[in-house]
Amino acid sequence: MSTSAHGTTETARSFFDDNSKPQTLQVKLKQTGEALEAFLDDKRGRGRPVVCITAGGTAVPLEANTVRTIDNFSTGRRGAVSAEQFIARGYGVIYLGREGCAAPFARRFQELVSNHVDLKFMDKLVLGDTRRVELGTEAAASTAKEGIVSGSGGAVTEVDERLVETLVAYKDAVESNSLLSISFVSLEEYLWCLRMVSRCMDRMGRHGMLFLAAAVSDFHIPSHKLREHKIDSSRGVRGDASSGLTLHLDEVPKCLGMIGEEWAPDCFRISFKLETDLERLLPKARAALKRYGMHVVVGNELHSRYDKVELIFPDGAERQIKKARGVGHVIEEALVEALAQEHFNYIAEGGGVGRGVGSSPAWHRQRSLLHRKKEGGAWSGLLSFLSPRTAMSMVTIVAAAVAARHFRDFLVEFTRQAFTTASEGEEARGGAVASVRR
Amino acid sequence: MSTSAHGTTETARSFFDDNSKPQTLQVKLKQTGEALEAFLDDKRGRGRPVVCITAGGTAVPLEANTVRTIDNFSTGRRGAVSAEQFIARGYGVIYLGREGCAAPFARRFQELVSNHVDLKFMDKLVLGDTRRVELGTEAAASTAKEGIVSGSGGAVTEVDERLVETLVAYKDAVESNSLLSISFVSLEEYLWCLRMVSRCMDRMGRHGMLFLAAAVSDFHIPSHKLREHKIDSSRGVRGDASSGLTLHLDEVPKCLGMIGEEWAPDCFRISFKLETDLERLLPKARAALKRYGMHVVVGNELHSRYDKVELIFPDGAERQIKKARGVGHVIEEALVEALAQEHFNYIAEGGGVGRGVGSSPAWHRQRSLLHRKKEGGAWSGLLSFLSPRTAMSMVTIVAAAVAARHFRDFLVEFTRQAFTTASEGEEARGGAVASVRR
Repeated sequence: MSTSAHGTTETARSFFDDNSKPQTLQVKLKQTGEALEAFLDDKRGRGRPVVCITAGGTAVPLEANTVRTIDNFSTGRRGAVSAEQFIARGYGVIYLGREGCAAPFARRFQELVSNHVDLKFMDKLVLGDTRRVELGTEAAASTAKEGIVSGSGGAVTEVDERLVETLVAYKDAVESNSLLSISFVSLEEYLWCLRMVSRCMDRMGRHGMLFLAAAVSDFHIPSHKLREHKIDSSRGVRGDASSGLTLHLDEVPKCLGMIGEEWAPDCFRISFKLETDLERLLPKARAALKRYGMHVVVGNELHSRYDKVELIFPDGAERQIKKARGVGHVIEEALVEALAQEHFNYIAEGGGVGRGVGSSPAWHRQRSLLHRKKEGGAWSGLLSFLSPRTAMSMVTIVAAAVAARHFRDFLVEFTRQAFTTASEGEEARGGAVASVRR
Repeated sequence: MSTSAHGTTETARSFFDDNSKPQTLQVKLKQTGEALEAFLDDKRGRGRPVVCITAGGTAVPLEANTVRTIDNFSTGRRGAVSAEQFIARGYGVIYLGREGCAAPFARRFQELVSNHVDLKFMDKLVLGDTRRVELGTEAAASTAKEGIVSGSGGAVTEVDERLVETLVAYKDAVESNSLLSISFVSLEEYLWCLRMVSRCMDRMGRHGMLFLAAAVSDFHIPSHKLREHKIDSSRGVRGDASSGLTLHLDEVPKCLGMIGEEWAPDCFRISFKLETDLERLLPKARAALKRYGMHVVVGNELHSRYDKVELIFPDGAERQIKKARGVGHVIEEALVEALAQEHFNYIAEGGGVGRGVGSSPAWHRQRSLLHRKKEGGAWSGLLSFLSPRTAMSMVTIVAAAVAARHFRDFLVEFTRQAFTTASEGEEARGGAVASVRR
């Protein structure tokens, strides 16, 4: 890792030293930390891989008594949809998302009912036979506008069915303890939570993945420089537009590098680069890859990001991921498929001893092989890195999985075996933890 | 009105001249304008007063391809709760609110279910007997976590009942065509909508009220100065915190003054002043009163604003409004009661000929009388300004209303009479308009 990256990490470290844990976060971090440990130990005991997904934008206050904030725009949709895809592939998901942004499963309700609990939402409610409030589609609700009539007797539309499917999928995820949710608003809250989650994730070794899709503020006013009260708008007002306000913002310490260097050096790390200018996207994505010790950087351009993204790897390789054709597909299917495959290769290659990207040359070679050859060639290329016995048992499992066309079962079985081999004999903690919120 | 206030209005006027109506707003403004006219003509035909409530904060973009915004904090709760109170008193309400903030009636669902369509929201859903998604309380939902069991069979809790009550109240408001909702996000969107609504409200004369509770940005980057692309965070990065970003923001033209001077000079105008510093609140509220030609300024201090507010009047009078004691009360009951009373006096005093605050001295005298005397004295003081015949018919209506203890019917009846007198013989447009959104 370069000296400048180390310098960046020093700055990030001093951020956590200088900004002692804010009192308002103490309780949240403690409670969330306990839930996190139980969640991760459960996954480790069951041999399930875990991904921590960050999503949504962070806000930085301009006053101590916050009236104004600078907000980074992000719908959080990339992270939310990807979380559903990872859960479908057998992953445990820690969802570190901006409050009010898209969340896994809930985003389907946002799309089908309303983005917010607002009047559009109210228009889709009807009073059921049993004096309960029911969510209906527009058609059901507009029938109900004639008076307060029950929607229960009405026809169940296709949209209603999709709501039910989503609810069933969510309850299934809760029941299988596949989702732990933590929310943030401010940059400070996000950074403290990210550090806590990353440090906890360290116990997962190579079976842990960090999918860092949050839109994190680049500039902020450090807490010791914040004005106590609202910025006065009448200073220098002369009834014209020439007066105004000048704000000086400091750069936010880049904490991404700390994940690879200190917090969770063995976890598989993916970050995202969003630009509005296509020309600047790839150079900036490549720079981020090296600077923060990522295994993959996903490059997004603001307007095309739901149709295609670029995966950029440390060895200089690039791979474009496109949304599958046809109705109802989302690009996150192909994206998560590709990333889970990379992660699987990374797990298969390592013995949990490497420290960071630089020390895993085999993964790079193996990844290059995978990309150079067709699928059959890729598998044999991968197998050439494994011992004959492991390779044979893998072939058996792969054959079974391909026969069943069920990648999830395959991955669970594979990682369980891998964990059993590397087991430290620890008993996984029991108990189901659904989610933690403020 | 002072020269400086006129100077301010000049700047505001040039804002609308310089910033030609943004293309993205053309369709919205046209559609909303038509719905608005129908809504207002309906209220005028029925003799109902109308209040336009603005609520929530505005956002100003820092780039043309918006990635970052400066956001003004506001829950929108003051406006949302007040809207419900005005509807209960017979007013038609135009709700100009920030997307995603509290909205009338919906805010009860936010309080009882979840602020957002998020995982907390998902946890309160159950699958009903008829394969419909039902909103239940936490208890119902946690029972349902055992599996996908129906909540329909379960007990209906107190919270469920409050949801049902709120839904019934909302459907009632829709049915009686009492609520028209328009949403905004950016400052630009807000200002163009405010101008359109105010100009339409002008036809209501003294029966119109503007309740300006939105938290409007004081500073922005004018569209011609916006950078096209995302601000680059790597400029001047030296691995330390000394590099950063300097932003120059222009002052936003103060448009509030234009309402009294041009857009809706006869409407009753109330603005809000929120400060975090109690010392600065009253002087700033008094300054705002004069500068923008308001009839009342409501002073809020950030931390006490749900318990007490100060009403400040042009004649120097002040009145503190406190939340009623006891469980379940909100300060907006007392606030809207006081403001509706002031509005009622203002309607009673005027003949629709005054132009702005300065030309309504009788309202000030009458208001002072109301505040100096006890209630009996206040009524006789008010009546002394009216003709004997009007006074007698008012006494009859007041007596009937007091007997029925139903202020809403009273106000509707009173304003209908007032309108019938001043009627221009126009036929009110029919048709019910529920709400207009982007």
